[in-house]
Amino acid sequence: MLKTSHGDLETPFFMPIATKGAVKSLTPQEMKETGAQVLLSNTYHLMLRPGVQVIKKAGGLHHFMGWNGPILTDSGGFQVFSLARQRKIKGNGVEFFTETDGGKRHFLTPELALEIQKGLGVDIAMILDVCAPYPCEKEEAKRAVELTTIWARKSLAWLKKNPVFRKKTLVFAIVQGSVHRDLREKSIKELVNFDFDGYALGGLAVGESNKKMYKVLDYAVPLLPEDKPRYLMGIGKPENIIEAVKHGIDMFDCVIPTREARHGRIYIKNENQKSQLMDYQVIRIANQKHREDFSPLDSNCQCYTCRNFSRAYLHHLFKTNEVLVLRLATLHNLKFYLDLMRMIREGLNNGKI
Amino acid sequence: MLKTSHGDLETPFFMPIATKGAVKSLTPQEMKETGAQVLLSNTYHLMLRPGVQVIKKAGGLHHFMGWNGPILTDSGGFQVFSLARQRKIKGNGVEFFTETDGGKRHFLTPELALEIQKGLGVDIAMILDVCAPYPCEKEEAKRAVELTTIWARKSLAWLKKNPVFRKKTLVFAIVQGSVHRDLREKSIKELVNFDFDGYALGGLAVGESNKKMYKVLDYAVPLLPEDKPRYLMGIGKPENIIEAVKHGIDMFDCVIPTREARHGRIYIKNENQKSQLMDYQVIRIANQKHREDFSPLDSNCQCYTCRNFSRAYLHHLFKTNEVLVLRLATLHNLKFYLDLMRMIREGLNNGKI
Repeated sequence: MLKTSHGDLETPFFMPIATKGAVKSLTPQEMKETGAQVLLSNTYHLMLRPGVQVIKKAGGLHHFMGWNGPILTDSGGFQVFSLARQRKIKGNGVEFFTETDGGKRHFLTPELALEIQKGLGVDIAMILDVCAPYPCEKEEAKRAVELTTIWARKSLAWLKKNPVFRKKTLVFAIVQGSVHRDLREKSIKELVNFDFDGYALGGLAVGESNKKMYKVLDYAVPLLPEDKPRYLMGIGKPENIIEAVKHGIDMFDCVIPTREARHGRIYIKNENQKSQLMDYQVIRIANQKHREDFSPLDSNCQCYTCRNFSRAYLHHLFKTNEVLVLRLATLHNLKFYLDLMRMIREGLNNGKI
Repeated sequence: MLKTSHGDLETPFFMPIATKGAVKSLTPQEMKETGAQVLLSNTYHLMLRPGVQVIKKAGGLHHFMGWNGPILTDSGGFQVFSLARQRKIKGNGVEFFTETDGGKRHFLTPELALEIQKGLGVDIAMILDVCAPYPCEKEEAKRAVELTTIWARKSLAWLKKNPVFRKKTLVFAIVQGSVHRDLREKSIKELVNFDFDGYALGGLAVGESNKKMYKVLDYAVPLLPEDKPRYLMGIGKPENIIEAVKHGIDMFDCVIPTREARHGRIYIKNENQKSQLMDYQVIRIANQKHREDFSPLDSNCQCYTCRNFSRAYLHHLFKTNEVLVLRLATLHNLKFYLDLMRMIREGLNNGKI
């Protein structure tokens, strides 16, 4: 159980993504009903639009978006590296230019990332890290680790000056090191020293194979403190999540259920998923074979979509670009993921995992 | 009160538009909660996709789309004239080609329009009419009236051969005649003879001024049977609806609340709308002045959007293209329209209108 200012979280859990303060196409009420415990938003996106001042004036992100459960915000490190039109890493932060505001120059520092998350009033804040691309030269991965540690130290100094925030917010550090064992070990050793509230493994799910990722888990997870939550960022497919849980990971986020839904790819449990957690399939609702299939997406699923609509109807909505299908598909895929996490927790409790 | 196979309708009423079997972005459950009594779908769109056979196999349109209230379908006459890539009116029907299915040739006849609506299993069916463009030569408007009458006779012959459908379905005729008094009178006289279950005024809201439309209502409505429902197709703004109710119109449909919502134009009651029904404004949620406006769209509105979110949040969602805003805005605008109809009914009941 992870205790936060907006309620306790049963681990392991999956965080649906509300990058800009909204889960794509769904309401907070639906997220609650679907079994979401906590949502993930993004510091980078929210600092650009609507800006932290607006959200502060709204009484914080929870009020602004109408979600009264816990919220975790990523620091924006990953987005600066993946989304900014241009970026330049400097010793004290990262300078970047964006498309959305006419190429305005921004400068994000470890201190500012926390300052923004303080303004948002989130429950779990991530410190700013440097995420190396994949693949990259080992030298570049090493510099990312070193700078991440330096920024962690700066973050800690800022936290000392903000004891109220420190007290009510869980602050996590992000381990880097790409797929290099010595670098991961170095990163963990340095960050664990700082005694953050939780530790994330960053820089994965960026193009490496499952095998390489699992290898990182093999050696990295045992080095993380046992009494602190462990978060595997941006992962993943159901089989990745199950494998990571077996390695000792507690927290997950991923765009897969929401993004795949928007492309009409629907996650369906197979009959024996109760015993075999990984037994599922992904169907393409646009496929002609669903045109006259009047059964629900999954007759064992209790989501609003499966209780009320057929594959044939969803197929029709998808083929005619009716926006309602985005909702219905997203709701179902998230229910699939959140049900999966519930089954995993049950499996852990009754010793089947 | 208009009695249908799926329940009674309090008149006057407004029909939210579910052209292809879905109100854009909203679920049937939300439509019910928002106060919708009846939905409008379209024969033309549904015959093309998914096709009447699919909906028949689904057990009818109500089952297919998960709406158990009444459904009215337009015959498709208007859409053939406004949407088809090419069309050719013939004595026994209209031939048209579409974009959506690779330019396939279709032939819609008065009999087929009813056959399709029978397959859909709707509560209120419209017979196929010929809708003249506006403006047009009087000769063209005259031909439209003549052919509409001929097709009404053909429709009636088909109905005699389908007594079960006739019994459980209300069938309406559509009066044409553009803005010409003699043509409207001729059209009404001929159609009223056929004793349909209701009469619609078609060919309005096609570009003519409000003044011209009201003039048509002035002379046309008194000629319609008093004991049959009167339907003004495709209209309109709140002030048009109120004016038309005063003329004796019972039924309305219009894309305004849903389409405007998608463009961020939001209908807001002014404080004294209770006494002055027409007192409202349309705000543009994208306008910068809403950026830090933390009040709801309308503090007197009980829709889900107004109960949970601020203008600032909706502004943010709109500016960042978050699809959730379509839902929230559509829900509110429909609530505005459905509340307006409720107030109109109250006004009629207590003699204030």
